[in-house]
Amino acid sequence: MSDPTLPAELAELRDRVSAFVREVVIPAEAELGLGAPSEELRSRLQRQAVEAGVFAPHVPEDYGGLGLGMFEQSVVFEAAGYSLLGPLALNCAAPDEGNMHLLHVIATDEQKARYLRPLAAGETRSCFAMTEPPPGAGSDPSALKTTATKTDGGWRIDGRKWLITGAAGAGFAIVMARTSEVTRGQGATMFLVEAGNPGFQVVREIPTLDHAMIGGHCEVVFEDCAVDDAAILGEADQGFRYAQVRLAPARLTHCMRWLGIARRSLDIALEHTRDRELFGERLHDLGLAQQLIADSAIDIEASRALIRQAVRVIDAGGRGGHESSIAKTFVSEAVDRVVDRAIQLCGGTGVTHETLLGRFMNEVRAFRIYDGSSETHRWAIARREARRTVG
Amino acid sequence: MSDPTLPAELAELRDRVSAFVREVVIPAEAELGLGAPSEELRSRLQRQAVEAGVFAPHVPEDYGGLGLGMFEQSVVFEAAGYSLLGPLALNCAAPDEGNMHLLHVIATDEQKARYLRPLAAGETRSCFAMTEPPPGAGSDPSALKTTATKTDGGWRIDGRKWLITGAAGAGFAIVMARTSEVTRGQGATMFLVEAGNPGFQVVREIPTLDHAMIGGHCEVVFEDCAVDDAAILGEADQGFRYAQVRLAPARLTHCMRWLGIARRSLDIALEHTRDRELFGERLHDLGLAQQLIADSAIDIEASRALIRQAVRVIDAGGRGGHESSIAKTFVSEAVDRVVDRAIQLCGGTGVTHETLLGRFMNEVRAFRIYDGSSETHRWAIARREARRTVG
Amino acid sequence: MSDPTLPAELAELRDRVSAFVREVVIPAEAELGLGAPSEELRSRLQRQAVEAGVFAPHVPEDYGGLGLGMFEQSVVFEAAGYSLLGPLALNCAAPDEGNMHLLHVIATDEQKARYLRPLAAGETRSCFAMTEPPPGAGSDPSALKTTATKTDGGWRIDGRKWLITGAAGAGFAIVMARTSEVTRGQGATMFLVEAGNPGFQVVREIPTLDHAMIGGHCEVVFEDCAVDDAAILGEADQGFRYAQVRLAPARLTHCMRWLGIARRSLDIALEHTRDRELFGERLHDLGLAQQLIADSAIDIEASRALIRQAVRVIDAGGRGGHESSIAKTFVSEAVDRVVDRAIQLCGGTGVTHETLLGRFMNEVRAFRIYDGSSETHRWAIARREARRTVG
Amino acid sequence: MSDPTLPAELAELRDRVSAFVREVVIPAEAELGLGAPSEELRSRLQRQAVEAGVFAPHVPEDYGGLGLGMFEQSVVFEAAGYSLLGPLALNCAAPDEGNMHLLHVIATDEQKARYLRPLAAGETRSCFAMTEPPPGAGSDPSALKTTATKTDGGWRIDGRKWLITGAAGAGFAIVMARTSEVTRGQGATMFLVEAGNPGFQVVREIPTLDHAMIGGHCEVVFEDCAVDDAAILGEADQGFRYAQVRLAPARLTHCMRWLGIARRSLDIALEHTRDRELFGERLHDLGLAQQLIADSAIDIEASRALIRQAVRVIDAGGRGGHESSIAKTFVSEAVDRVVDRAIQLCGGTGVTHETLLGRFMNEVRAFRIYDGSSETHRWAIARREARRTVG
Repeated sequence: MSDPTLPAELAELRDRVSAFVREVVIPAEAELGLGAPSEELRSRLQRQAVEAGVFAPHVPEDYGGLGLGMFEQSVVFEAAGYSLLGPLALNCAAPDEGNMHLLHVIATDEQKARYLRPLAAGETRSCFAMTEPPPGAGSDPSALKTTATKTDGGWRIDGRKWLITGAAGAGFAIVMARTSEVTRGQGATMFLVEAGNPGFQVVREIPTLDHAMIGGHCEVVFEDCAVDDAAILGEADQGFRYAQVRLAPARLTHCMRWLGIARRSLDIALEHTRDRELFGERLHDLGLAQQLIADSAIDIEASRALIRQAVRVIDAGGRGGHESSIAKTFVSEAVDRVVDRAIQLCGGTGVTHETLLGRFMNEVRAFRIYDGSSETHRWAIARREARRTVG
Repeated sequence: MSDPTLPAELAELRDRVSAFVREVVIPAEAELGLGAPSEELRSRLQRQAVEAGVFAPHVPEDYGGLGLGMFEQSVVFEAAGYSLLGPLALNCAAPDEGNMHLLHVIATDEQKARYLRPLAAGETRSCFAMTEPPPGAGSDPSALKTTATKTDGGWRIDGRKWLITGAAGAGFAIVMARTSEVTRGQGATMFLVEAGNPGFQVVREIPTLDHAMIGGHCEVVFEDCAVDDAAILGEADQGFRYAQVRLAPARLTHCMRWLGIARRSLDIALEHTRDRELFGERLHDLGLAQQLIADSAIDIEASRALIRQAVRVIDAGGRGGHESSIAKTFVSEAVDRVVDRAIQLCGGTGVTHETLLGRFMNEVRAFRIYDGSSETHRWAIARREARRTVG
Repeated sequence: MSDPTLPAELAELRDRVSAFVREVVIPAEAELGLGAPSEELRSRLQRQAVEAGVFAPHVPEDYGGLGLGMFEQSVVFEAAGYSLLGPLALNCAAPDEGNMHLLHVIATDEQKARYLRPLAAGETRSCFAMTEPPPGAGSDPSALKTTATKTDGGWRIDGRKWLITGAAGAGFAIVMARTSEVTRGQGATMFLVEAGNPGFQVVREIPTLDHAMIGGHCEVVFEDCAVDDAAILGEADQGFRYAQVRLAPARLTHCMRWLGIARRSLDIALEHTRDRELFGERLHDLGLAQQLIADSAIDIEASRALIRQAVRVIDAGGRGGHESSIAKTFVSEAVDRVVDRAIQLCGGTGVTHETLLGRFMNEVRAFRIYDGSSETHRWAIARREARRTVG
Repeated sequence: MSDPTLPAELAELRDRVSAFVREVVIPAEAELGLGAPSEELRSRLQRQAVEAGVFAPHVPEDYGGLGLGMFEQSVVFEAAGYSLLGPLALNCAAPDEGNMHLLHVIATDEQKARYLRPLAAGETRSCFAMTEPPPGAGSDPSALKTTATKTDGGWRIDGRKWLITGAAGAGFAIVMARTSEVTRGQGATMFLVEAGNPGFQVVREIPTLDHAMIGGHCEVVFEDCAVDDAAILGEADQGFRYAQVRLAPARLTHCMRWLGIARRSLDIALEHTRDRELFGERLHDLGLAQQLIADSAIDIEASRALIRQAVRVIDAGGRGGHESSIAKTFVSEAVDRVVDRAIQLCGGTGVTHETLLGRFMNEVRAFRIYDGSSETHRWAIARREARRTVG
């Protein structure tokens, strides 16, 4: 099942990433246990990725990366995502990867030098502080409660953020705060806040179903958090617009990485069923197992096809909002189904921690909720469809 | 929702086809009633398609067509499929379209002159006589019961075929018959049999759920049907291999056309819900309607993405067996779901014949069965997946 | 799979009905073709049902029936529903069966003598004229547009009704009309209007997907339709309340009858697969067929269990609104799935009219829409659930 | 939504159990953390259950229980299952509850005095040692590898068992071992083996997705494990038959308990959505949330109806094999769906451990695999259906 539609160079890079994941990353998974990777493991894997020539595939060459477009990323990130540790090793994991993209598009040269360069090099980590505990900004950004108030020569940020991935240990945060009255797509501003700022505290790591994100999912508090004017990312009051810049690509890179876990899950199940018999037949020849296998193959192929269609739109200059919304909804649900079927195919073994499948089940569950829940996306898709034919 | 990934020329052609369907084909649907199109309607629409410059898009330019590759076909056939009559108007309906492809690839120049040229021009119709009534050749081609026996200077064909689309009124049939012992992919031969042959009888049109195919779905009998050696299409005993040549592309062109009906169905439902209120809200703003609309939009987008991925493989020189099998399984089921949800969105109106939706429901139902049922495809997909990781 | 939970007498009656359906009703199906039964066929079958002692099982013994409670009806109606003609033969088909129930509960003795007695005896038919073309009363009864205006000694009814099942040839209609301002559950009145009334016209039979209902699904017009005060069924302005009396049981008896068709469909498919082989195995031993069979068996059993739970509530004196709403939603969708899987199991044969399955597909489709669409029921179920835990 | 079909006494008992769970058990859940309950917690809750008059509802009155039949159990166990700790508190948790049933039906009076009495009183715990690591006995009992060899005056058991729930700390095990050639339903024997036996070792608790079972899911080894003849439960070579005695009821009591968790999950989600707004509407009034809520309500009602139908069959003297198989398949899948939708309804909160839902997701996952996986049940259901109509 090689793919003749890929340019040879891209296929070669993908194979290189796959080999790196197989030979370097997967053997390191044992160090992960049921918890998060250590900073030491992160650094070591990233060094090895640099050596293997697969580091920072999405980063512009000026900043030390491979400078891939989104279509190319879709191929490479899926290969990296075959291990929970793969994206971290390639420095293309969330939230850093999305933040690099945002900084690349929005930041001043000075900001790029100070934040993007070390981030792209894996010398620091970052977080994206937008979501707030209910009833604050979640699916509905207009509910944003964190404020930034103008002071002499700068701003004072106050508010509470929640489920901020990677915050513990991050070198800086990109923070969304309300700077004037919020109306359609106006009124919020993004700020760059550094870890040492005494007004910025990570108050706890929230216990969640997933465990693989370095720096956890944290609650963070901004209290009398003073920053100067240069901390503004882009222009004041345009934060929602910039969030859109990050949103569609970040959704899609999530899809690419999780699709790798889906493919891995099916492979684990195929490996398992190849060795087993039931009622005297090889398990994967039994019809009900065949249904599970085929449905997962279809889900994986449809996911990949939707991702590719969406990234082609973006690579061609489109915004890809509708396409990425559809892809995200389908892929996040498909990945769950594939992992679930893999568990089912492995029977009793599938619900022990003797395979990684139970862990995967917990790692992927939240993807149907973050970056817009399936319900929010369906609502938006339906509204766009309803408007579509009016004209 | 324009698609920036399409070349401008292709987008222009698609728009031209869409305009032709909207302005010429859809107004003619009223003549269809609940039955099949007449030959007169076929000729008239095809003449208009020639005038509009959209006729025979898949046919090589040498034979009077637009010479599109499969990717381009995927865009154009979907636009044509927006009406049940569209593919007929463009002369890219089943089974003729697949037969043209087969003749183009396999036939001798003489055969092309005699069969392909008038078929491509819409001067005649054809059928593909492979399927047999149970327990003959259906999903399992090795069960082939129709035989062709060598005679002096020719062959004698005997057997019964079933569900042969378009047979009534077809100018010729491509007939699959057993010519030696059937082993893996060997032993069957394709013959070109003309309508006037006294050994070839269309014995009845089988009443089926669908009604839109000109020439129906027929039972045909070959009894002492004499043909000469020049009637062999390609080489003797290689019929199964040629069937594969036709199979993957024909599956995909079915998907393209039916996807047009899916899009049409959703549009009918959106049109309906735009005008209606329930509990004081516009129907398409109600949440449960939004779920139906969004799920259909996702199904359509995923179908299109899978079709495109499969045709890109074929355009790149791959066989596309696995990809087309996955696409066919997904699309045939997705189209049914989209039509079904459209009926649901239209409520009481949806189950009357005041919309076309009930008819569409009946037209598309068989697509989950012919060209390999969903179950046969899933079985094959699972087997390929199981083998995949052995190596 | 006999059912030890049934009282012996009830099991015996069910077996008697099953035998009657098998021996008398199913042989008569051939007369049905693809259309509706004739009045002659109805009379003949009903005479035979009387002779077999299975006529009018739901009708009180005073009116010539078997006087069954709802639980008993659930067993007998399913057995009758095994043929499209079974409920008609037993005189327990919609809409007459629901109208008999309504008349029994609401009508005056005089009205019962005039309308219920001949209806119960099969001497006449009736219809229930509530639904109006959009934007009139459908899922949302408060949109009722038909009016009844007080006149000297009576009322004048004006309005248009739509999808009125059985109207063509019915002896009388039960008509819902607005008699004062419509507020929650008030303001509408039910009237008994006889066929000869010059103000009551059946203007057309609306072409629909289904064909088995005698008297079709009609558009009817009331224009200056004069009735006297004795035509009021129950009290004025209480029509919505009475509609509720009819609603929950009528939903459930629909479920019972259609469940019979589901069971019949699975049996047709099992019969088909028993005789067929694919890849050298009996078709029903193939895994993917087993999935279809098992899922249908589960759907049938769950449908029956939900129906029984709901009728037990009603037999115990409960209203059964929530239970019947849940049962209706599940059963209407399950029946469709079972019929659809049966078609899939029959392959090519399934989409011809050589089995009854294609017809069943068209007959059952509307059940997810009438008596409250799945969406309307889900909306109501969710609202009840949301209120449930408030207290 | 009170249930008028329940006898008053049973409704009163259910309400008592619900009150006990709400007032005593749920407050103790905080002690559980993410792990298993301690023996101290078990003893304390069981003492409180005795005081509340709800202890051991399924145990015959002679042995200190409430002597409920299966229908009554279905009502009470669901109420107990509303907390993960409820069944433990009432001493009706797996595997003890199923073992009590088995001992009651099969054991000698002496065995009952020694094993059943203290088990029913909560003075000890037990385990059921049947499943073996692949390729041993799992879905396919004929693969049984553990042997018991006749010795002078007794037997010697050798083998390895796997995923034996509750083994750590259990006072005794019921062990299935091969005692002669295994043919259809013959050749295996059940033995009672006590914890102190030096030939019986719990070698490890297998890490699994779920954590709530006291005594874990263990690997146990029998090595030269000597027992005397009185250790045989029932007759030699009849172990498979006895396993059937335990099987259908144990499947159903699992369903009852997990249905309680499903109801709890929906209630948690309803509680959450009642307090939240999105886009200015109460969350549970939004349509896409309504779909999730309604589908869960339907799943719960259908689960309960299937359980009730199956237990009525058993209470009426039937074996209930088919009915319990169907109920188990549906309920195990429905419970997962309900928990999953509840997480979705809670959004970001749903994937933290601030609700119990993530834990529930992990606790219920294995139920689609143990006691016969969904695939094994579907295979069996389809075979019974296929045989059904042969006669």
